[in-house]
Amino acid sequence: MSFDLIIQDIYNQVKEAQDNGKVASYIPELLNVNPESFGIYFSANNQVRYGIGDCGYKFSIQSVSKVFSLSLAYSLKGEDIWNRLGVEPSGTSYNSLIQLETDHGIPRNPFINAGAIVITDILISCLPNYRHDFLEFVRKLSGVKSINYSAKIAVSEKAVGYRNIALCNFIKSFGNIENNPEEVLDFYFDICSLEMSCEELSNSFLFLANQGLNPHSNEQVLTKSQSKRINALMQTCGFYDESGEFAFKVGLPGKSGVGGGIVAVHPGEYVISVWSPKLNEKGNSFKGMQFLEKFTTESRLSIF
Amino acid sequence: MSFDLIIQDIYNQVKEAQDNGKVASYIPELLNVNPESFGIYFSANNQVRYGIGDCGYKFSIQSVSKVFSLSLAYSLKGEDIWNRLGVEPSGTSYNSLIQLETDHGIPRNPFINAGAIVITDILISCLPNYRHDFLEFVRKLSGVKSINYSAKIAVSEKAVGYRNIALCNFIKSFGNIENNPEEVLDFYFDICSLEMSCEELSNSFLFLANQGLNPHSNEQVLTKSQSKRINALMQTCGFYDESGEFAFKVGLPGKSGVGGGIVAVHPGEYVISVWSPKLNEKGNSFKGMQFLEKFTTESRLSIF
Amino acid sequence: MSFDLIIQDIYNQVKEAQDNGKVASYIPELLNVNPESFGIYFSANNQVRYGIGDCGYKFSIQSVSKVFSLSLAYSLKGEDIWNRLGVEPSGTSYNSLIQLETDHGIPRNPFINAGAIVITDILISCLPNYRHDFLEFVRKLSGVKSINYSAKIAVSEKAVGYRNIALCNFIKSFGNIENNPEEVLDFYFDICSLEMSCEELSNSFLFLANQGLNPHSNEQVLTKSQSKRINALMQTCGFYDESGEFAFKVGLPGKSGVGGGIVAVHPGEYVISVWSPKLNEKGNSFKGMQFLEKFTTESRLSIF
Amino acid sequence: MSFDLIIQDIYNQVKEAQDNGKVASYIPELLNVNPESFGIYFSANNQVRYGIGDCGYKFSIQSVSKVFSLSLAYSLKGEDIWNRLGVEPSGTSYNSLIQLETDHGIPRNPFINAGAIVITDILISCLPNYRHDFLEFVRKLSGVKSINYSAKIAVSEKAVGYRNIALCNFIKSFGNIENNPEEVLDFYFDICSLEMSCEELSNSFLFLANQGLNPHSNEQVLTKSQSKRINALMQTCGFYDESGEFAFKVGLPGKSGVGGGIVAVHPGEYVISVWSPKLNEKGNSFKGMQFLEKFTTESRLSIF
Repeated sequence: MSFDLIIQDIYNQVKEAQDNGKVASYIPELLNVNPESFGIYFSANNQVRYGIGDCGYKFSIQSVSKVFSLSLAYSLKGEDIWNRLGVEPSGTSYNSLIQLETDHGIPRNPFINAGAIVITDILISCLPNYRHDFLEFVRKLSGVKSINYSAKIAVSEKAVGYRNIALCNFIKSFGNIENNPEEVLDFYFDICSLEMSCEELSNSFLFLANQGLNPHSNEQVLTKSQSKRINALMQTCGFYDESGEFAFKVGLPGKSGVGGGIVAVHPGEYVISVWSPKLNEKGNSFKGMQFLEKFTTESRLSIF
Repeated sequence: MSFDLIIQDIYNQVKEAQDNGKVASYIPELLNVNPESFGIYFSANNQVRYGIGDCGYKFSIQSVSKVFSLSLAYSLKGEDIWNRLGVEPSGTSYNSLIQLETDHGIPRNPFINAGAIVITDILISCLPNYRHDFLEFVRKLSGVKSINYSAKIAVSEKAVGYRNIALCNFIKSFGNIENNPEEVLDFYFDICSLEMSCEELSNSFLFLANQGLNPHSNEQVLTKSQSKRINALMQTCGFYDESGEFAFKVGLPGKSGVGGGIVAVHPGEYVISVWSPKLNEKGNSFKGMQFLEKFTTESRLSIF
Repeated sequence: MSFDLIIQDIYNQVKEAQDNGKVASYIPELLNVNPESFGIYFSANNQVRYGIGDCGYKFSIQSVSKVFSLSLAYSLKGEDIWNRLGVEPSGTSYNSLIQLETDHGIPRNPFINAGAIVITDILISCLPNYRHDFLEFVRKLSGVKSINYSAKIAVSEKAVGYRNIALCNFIKSFGNIENNPEEVLDFYFDICSLEMSCEELSNSFLFLANQGLNPHSNEQVLTKSQSKRINALMQTCGFYDESGEFAFKVGLPGKSGVGGGIVAVHPGEYVISVWSPKLNEKGNSFKGMQFLEKFTTESRLSIF
Repeated sequence: MSFDLIIQDIYNQVKEAQDNGKVASYIPELLNVNPESFGIYFSANNQVRYGIGDCGYKFSIQSVSKVFSLSLAYSLKGEDIWNRLGVEPSGTSYNSLIQLETDHGIPRNPFINAGAIVITDILISCLPNYRHDFLEFVRKLSGVKSINYSAKIAVSEKAVGYRNIALCNFIKSFGNIENNPEEVLDFYFDICSLEMSCEELSNSFLFLANQGLNPHSNEQVLTKSQSKRINALMQTCGFYDESGEFAFKVGLPGKSGVGGGIVAVHPGEYVISVWSPKLNEKGNSFKGMQFLEKFTTESRLSIF
């Protein structure tokens, strides 16, 4: 069966199935979305493209953006970034402060909030126009110039972002933030507020299926080794304390966000993005997880 | 460059390089080994075989055996085993008791000691002649009848195995051990005491590179889905709190033991085993880690 | 109002009040007790004695015995014992293993199970006939020769004592137990199994109200400083993670046990013991806590 | 020997003894002090007063002020405050965030930073002119009108107070801070910046030796029960993770600050204050701890 038929078939199954998830409510603005939205987009290295449902609708990508900021920092600073954060799964939830205390302010990996905040600090330190430069980086990856931050979402998150303010100041107290915490947080909330569609996400992640080469611009964004390593990190740490479950059931490197988006990469092959805003208890899209589990089972295309 | 030349080349590099590791001393009997031992064995689905150094020398496989006991329990009881343990990386060291307390006696995954002890308990509950049956299972996987437990090693570990006694009784106190803790521990120490060579290890893991099919006996040991899932678990949890690092640097599912052995699987392709007894600070073979990192870099054959 | 009237009055109030506690069920044999039992006994340095209710009925004193074992070890080994355990409140429950891991096998204080197990190990190491010698020590403190271990209770606890087996072996794995863990645990369960009445308890704790002098035998059991220090430890650590609450509401050093007994000491003045088997959520006697809170409020005799 | 002679004698001993402590450096402004400063002041309920050394020199009282803010909040809101924080020792250091996460934003007690921040929030919510009102409260307790905040110290602490910013925002994220975190922190730093001498401290704590009655104004600041309870809290929680040690060695309720001050109360009898800026590893005055241990040993006047 071809990819498009498999996707269509599973899309229909999952669309009808009961969804026990809940739309994220901790950022008030995130509630302004149709909870029944559901879209899929598939982009292969071999140019095959296929989308279904709300695959063209822009949503708040939230933590999926952590892959972009890590990629940019990694391309700029190389292996030096690992002096300031680790590459291990945390075994705890995405916004935990516990390990930071025992680890003296060194976040376990770049995909928990603490790690992404350190990556944000690195970007501020080495980019003069960081807000602009980061946006350009994502636009180039996706080949879409209209991608932008959402001021509404950023403001909404900042107004209630006490946990992230705590995280950033806590790390600063250990000396692992160079810039002013408020500046770091403002940029962090901006990055999280990016709005993209499944189509744009799949296209912008293709460089990770393609050994670091951006197929739209033909630029080598990351070395092959760096690209491989980011995929490894998505595999072990991309879904917070459900990372093992995702590897176990889906078997692809990937990254989720509380906006309900999930991007999964089959290195050397393709990228597939799913969006559905209702989240399971671990904060990952309920339908997105279901879809991807069925997809790799039926397509027999996990990396394991 | 062909596999055998790559292996030979890296073997020589690593053999000469400084080894900062230390032979595990917590089991006294493990010290009776030549610390400079170093062997590699490569087995591919396509029948290619290549060994170098001490690849035919039997050593104590220790925690590598956890993949065998998990596979046997999984084949016997199916998904039911996941009611009694999880599939998430722990973020802590292999013999930690901390998470067990907060997780009410449910080990995070089958590759930390706590999880392997629960798997051992499952085997005892469903196999009448469990010592014999487990051994037969491993012999069939490897195609080698002479594989056996080492009474010396088992007795040596038991005599100082206070931490594992603590783990087993702690789990029992939460009701997640069915059998007598002493019986469970005796069998657990037996399983860890298996002695195998790199050649035997690579051959016995081939079913995991081969979608669950034992190529020696042509038996389907695990379903394709189960085989995929064990590979995923090795990827996320196979190296304790260095699992992320191994995925990051090596990029293959694998499992290590304090005897200095490491087995890595490239699903659909091959298995490679390394043995060198001196361990790094995380308890994984110092040279083994170095060899495998170079191997996937130069062969360009990680799964990511 | 004199002590006897105050006690009688509060006894009647509390006897009638609703008791939301539950008899400890984790040691099966402990359930063989009348859950409505309630007794009080007051012994003052000035010879005043007063008892009411089931004050002459022997019950399982359980962790109250930890004060006896600490006192004996302290009298034998002096300040050396503090090399092997601390004097700080743990902030966690009585049988937690978490802190032991971060504290490398050094228990926080002698009144959590871990600490009492270390004290038991110390007694075994320095007393040739430790079972007999400990019993004689308690008999002398109380002036009652008939006090004894309960084999029934000890056997019942041992049969399900997995958590304590875990604790003891865990500490042993850090090198902080000298003797065989099984021998240590057998004696530990014996110590916990002591059966005494409120009257016997109050009389046997008088040396702590009396600067270390046993008023029955006129022997100096502990130095003044040691006696003061044990009272301080009971104040800060005597009620597990309800120690602060007990200091806050009752304001006396004291020690509780899961058999439902509580002994409280007013240094320089008196000892008061309460027994009622139904326990609150923290494992302390529900009625016992109520009685003592009212008692120090109405008698205006807390140490604060 | 009379109190003044005992104090004089121990003062001389400790003054000459080696001091392994270090002046707190985390607040830059605190370094502007003579590290060899050493003063004592004793105030008894019976009007006896005695001071020696730098007992009249004003220093930054820092966390000693937490007793004042707790007393004011307790007097204003009564037992309601315990809905928002606990009365248990934490078993962890003064600025730990770990327990807050497991305890869902409810600080263990009012003397760790987290708890004092919640108390500060309570004061802001119920006092229209909180900065002024709090100062008046302390002035009345001490009978000294010149007591004041130090803007220099407050500004200096605020500039590097990342850990406290983290704590306050973390608690806010759990909903246990009512006001704006920045306003709460500003007032919190003000409270910590109070400057007082040993003499002023001893006199201002007399109400806690006197069942809640301010002897200077003859006002009942707290009820007898409240006064007793604050003493109990100082006993179990006044010295962070050295609280058990202080009870054990000194045997009096007390409170320390990183400015090097310690106040200890003997309920019903006296207050004694010590100041010496060099701190031990736990953040308590090195000489202050030594002095008080010797003082209660030689005066035989601990509460135990």
